[in-house]
Amino acid sequence: MRASNPIKHFVGQHLQNTRRPLPARALVTELERPHTGDAGHRGQTGFDPATGERTARRQLADARYAIEPVLRAAIASLAEPLDRMAGYHFGWCDTTGADAPGVQGKALRPALTLAAAAACGGEVADAVHAAAAVELLHNFSLVHDDVMDSDDTRHGRPTVWRVWGETNATLLGDALQALALGVLSDGVPEPVTAEAVIRLARTTVALCQGQYEDCAFETRRSVSVDEYLAMAAGKTGALLGCSCALGALCAGADHRVVSGMHTFGRELGVVFQLVDDAMDIWGDPAITGKPAHSDLLHRKQSYPVVCALASDTSAGRELARMYQARHPMTASRAARAAELVEAAGGRQRTIARAATALRSAVDALPPDAASGDLLALAQLVAHRNR
Amino acid sequence: MRASNPIKHFVGQHLQNTRRPLPARALVTELERPHTGDAGHRGQTGFDPATGERTARRQLADARYAIEPVLRAAIASLAEPLDRMAGYHFGWCDTTGADAPGVQGKALRPALTLAAAAACGGEVADAVHAAAAVELLHNFSLVHDDVMDSDDTRHGRPTVWRVWGETNATLLGDALQALALGVLSDGVPEPVTAEAVIRLARTTVALCQGQYEDCAFETRRSVSVDEYLAMAAGKTGALLGCSCALGALCAGADHRVVSGMHTFGRELGVVFQLVDDAMDIWGDPAITGKPAHSDLLHRKQSYPVVCALASDTSAGRELARMYQARHPMTASRAARAAELVEAAGGRQRTIARAATALRSAVDALPPDAASGDLLALAQLVAHRNR
Repeated sequence: MRASNPIKHFVGQHLQNTRRPLPARALVTELERPHTGDAGHRGQTGFDPATGERTARRQLADARYAIEPVLRAAIASLAEPLDRMAGYHFGWCDTTGADAPGVQGKALRPALTLAAAAACGGEVADAVHAAAAVELLHNFSLVHDDVMDSDDTRHGRPTVWRVWGETNATLLGDALQALALGVLSDGVPEPVTAEAVIRLARTTVALCQGQYEDCAFETRRSVSVDEYLAMAAGKTGALLGCSCALGALCAGADHRVVSGMHTFGRELGVVFQLVDDAMDIWGDPAITGKPAHSDLLHRKQSYPVVCALASDTSAGRELARMYQARHPMTASRAARAAELVEAAGGRQRTIARAATALRSAVDALPPDAASGDLLALAQLVAHRNR
Repeated sequence: MRASNPIKHFVGQHLQNTRRPLPARALVTELERPHTGDAGHRGQTGFDPATGERTARRQLADARYAIEPVLRAAIASLAEPLDRMAGYHFGWCDTTGADAPGVQGKALRPALTLAAAAACGGEVADAVHAAAAVELLHNFSLVHDDVMDSDDTRHGRPTVWRVWGETNATLLGDALQALALGVLSDGVPEPVTAEAVIRLARTTVALCQGQYEDCAFETRRSVSVDEYLAMAAGKTGALLGCSCALGALCAGADHRVVSGMHTFGRELGVVFQLVDDAMDIWGDPAITGKPAHSDLLHRKQSYPVVCALASDTSAGRELARMYQARHPMTASRAARAAELVEAAGGRQRTIARAATALRSAVDALPPDAASGDLLALAQLVAHRNR
């Protein structure tokens, strides 16, 4: 049976029986254990694993609601047809501009911004522009990545470049990047404007670097674990880190707290990427909404694959031969590759690495912050199934 | 005989004889005549048409020299290979990263920033980050435009996308946009950081919009004069306007002066684009460094063409038939098209419109600014031959 999320599946199995090895519970354990070097901190966070996922889903919905007016005002500043293309991409309208709601993004990044601000005593109003800015920047990267990766669909609809062409999609992405910086500098409290903009601009450079590496990996025979983690830190960690840092910054937190929040988000980004990779191989396409084994079909060097190829096992060597072969990677070959990845320890090592990153994230949380909502979001990231 | 710059050619001819009609001197006249509504202002600017071009060329060289350390530091913050790609694009190295200076950009935009700052009593140090930022943003748009327009060469070397592919060129452009905003927020005086970033972000959106329209014109049968001017205001005017406004802002000028400087630059941008269009048809390829009649060969709706098509003359109608025909536009057909554009009044109307824009630019200069250097740069833009 394919699980919707391998980690959740492991956790579920562990609760029912003990057939699965202990690392299966690693992620939950990380969220439950006392905070190292800061005894008693966990008691103050207000985090409750039993209600964590519900709390997190409410936060996502609240964040989406909070930023929507800012997003819509920013998009409305674009002229035709860039405004319509953006509205379509955000799931507000169809290609003609008529109201026809599509599936919207999760709003994880703005939720992290607002949760980080709240953890530092800030109000939603202090951080809502920063939250909208990180969502705009995230969508800049999605629109451009879809062009670069030739991805045809997103949220079940044709991608922007499939509808309007590569040139227009590139221009929309360019405009969304600019809107992100514009919204940020327009709405962030004056004393921290410069630092906020510098952080978001650096994050954008890191995103580009991470995407470069991700694309470059596709033509390489092998990728080391460290190279993979550097890529994930850029492609996913940088913006999640920035999202948290900006929330703290807007709430008037000091440098130490802002820095801790950044580390929390950055490490959570690594967890996010590892779970993403695991879902591609062991997730349920009916729930993830993505084709099964897409990474394997494209011979992508995802983290489980990188670990399996480096494992010096017979399964790892068979996988290496499949990845180097010139014949097309069929669905049945990809299914065999998934078995080999697991047999070579790729699944277990991915979970273990995600647990380590989650521990680093939690350890970085400033002891005096009220981090319950952030931990609930971390739980959702670690246990998500889509 | 083909002139290197039709306007300069006209001006030269007018000085030698009077065969050519009076509009030929329109651009020089605009720079020499007294300032409307502000008698005596011209005397304070220190502008000398006789030495204007030399003054302007020295300003360009000074600006390039002043911003280079900031540019190099920004580019050095990129990781391999984006840093090398940027160094190649800026003409500092070859594709392997080895020192091999290529032709560098004119640095018109940073020169405008520094001249606007100086006109408002500012120092180079106040505005050098803003000057570097506008140059970075300009190069973001060049790198992306080269991809979108499938341009193979720039400054006589293969374009970035021709060497590293479209995906990597898109990523480099994305990173350059981010560096522009980062450099600006990092180096602009604190009280004006937010306004500076908002201005540059809005400018980026206008660039995208202008480039969208420019691309969209290529598939349209006809473009109105107003549509063309709106495109030029976005594609070229927005960044020249922003360059001047940022200089004034960094020098501590008040809102009225910043706004006047913006209008000066924006209108100068329209002059720039019109001269560009005129050079494509009547410029000397040996001097412009661009292929002869490139716009006509691509059936592009440049301003002289737009005017000719709208002229209701027999030459205009013949040109319309050539633009609508399906047969390939050969070099000899393009040469005939150039004659038709001129016969239909396209050349004269382009010069007249450039003169109007130049007048608007000069009229917008704040009366209390020491605008001699800005006028020298305006002279260079109006009379440039490459």
